[in-house]
Amino acid sequence: MPGIEKLPIEETLEDSPQTRSLLGVFEEDTAAISNYCTQLYQAMQRIYDAQNELSAATHLTSRLLKEYDKQRFPLGGDDEVMSSTLQQFAKVIDELSSCHAVLSTQLADAMMFPITQFKERDLKEILTLKEVFQISSDDHDTAINRYSRLSKRRDNDKMRAEVVEDVYTSRKKQHQTMMHYFCSLNTLQYKKKMALLEPLLGYIRTSE
Amino acid sequence: MPGIEKLPIEETLEDSPQTRSLLGVFEEDTAAISNYCTQLYQAMQRIYDAQNELSAATHLTSRLLKEYDKQRFPLGGDDEVMSSTLQQFAKVIDELSSCHAVLSTQLADAMMFPITQFKERDLKEILTLKEVFQISSDDHDTAINRYSRLSKRRDNDKMRAEVVEDVYTSRKKQHQTMMHYFCSLNTLQYKKKMALLEPLLGYIRTSE
Repeated sequence: MPGIEKLPIEETLEDSPQTRSLLGVFEEDTAAISNYCTQLYQAMQRIYDAQNELSAATHLTSRLLKEYDKQRFPLGGDDEVMSSTLQQFAKVIDELSSCHAVLSTQLADAMMFPITQFKERDLKEILTLKEVFQISSDDHDTAINRYSRLSKRRDNDKMRAEVVEDVYTSRKKQHQTMMHYFCSLNTLQYKKKMALLEPLLGYIRTSE
Repeated sequence: MPGIEKLPIEETLEDSPQTRSLLGVFEEDTAAISNYCTQLYQAMQRIYDAQNELSAATHLTSRLLKEYDKQRFPLGGDDEVMSSTLQQFAKVIDELSSCHAVLSTQLADAMMFPITQFKERDLKEILTLKEVFQISSDDHDTAINRYSRLSKRRDNDKMRAEVVEDVYTSRKKQHQTMMHYFCSLNTLQYKKKMALLEPLLGYIRTSE
């Protein structure tokens, strides 16, 4: 399937059943992306947390070795050779700990940042727009309903004008939010590949 | 302080206050070693757990990438380029995961095994012997007590013989357990340096 599929924004005014059906397909795709991406996010969060823990535990080990001289050992506590050996070990493990800390920072920047942005910004935006669109659709339905009931009875012109105005504004609102929603769903189709590849590239580059 | 200090096993029969005082120093030293070693053990356990978690999380990430093709994406799900790119990434991350798994195994063998052995076998043995020695000392005290009360009253020969026998066996038991306990405390003085250095060397070699 070459190229990227798009929801036709020019069809939002007409809002035909065909358009709604296509919207359903995009929503399904978005849900699948969101689900897959969340799983990947959780796995990456585990990698990141483990790397942080590794860094902290290595640092603690090095700190313990540095504190060896401060321990009160009644026997042989002033053993120079042991003491200097442990200090050298502490230095090596300190360097390991620094490496782990640098890795953690790189993972945060190159892996966690892009996938978190995608999850917390792009995917959340679509959920928000879906809600907003749903609300404006409901408002529009209510307005249409009021209008259809009005026309059967004989009401005064003022009320009729009010209801027509209501239908107009709610229709306009619904059209606007639908355009926004479509636009956001289309953008996701452009972003989805990079959203998966960027954190993975970041992870692989960090681990090289 | 050159050489390794020893508790004199030949003094256990006499069991003088000087010997008891020296025992106190060795017990204090053992407690200090045990405390320091436990802290190091906990830090190493954290390193090991983190390394295991890193291995598991990396494996999960690779598995998720391999499962990309099985996801039902209604739009562009059959994108060959994306699919093969992710499979290549999965391969690289799989290799990383194998490296992490090897590291875990090496840490288990070279770091966790020696420190766990020292903690669970050598240090525990001393605690057990301390208890056994305490019990046999108490038994001996009880026997001595009975003996001293006996001699004031006029008892029959049979009971006197029984009590003397009791003093003898309990004294023998106490002497034996004290020799064992001293022997174990002396051995710890020989082992304590290697017990610290071996897992650290194992860790450093694994991380090189």
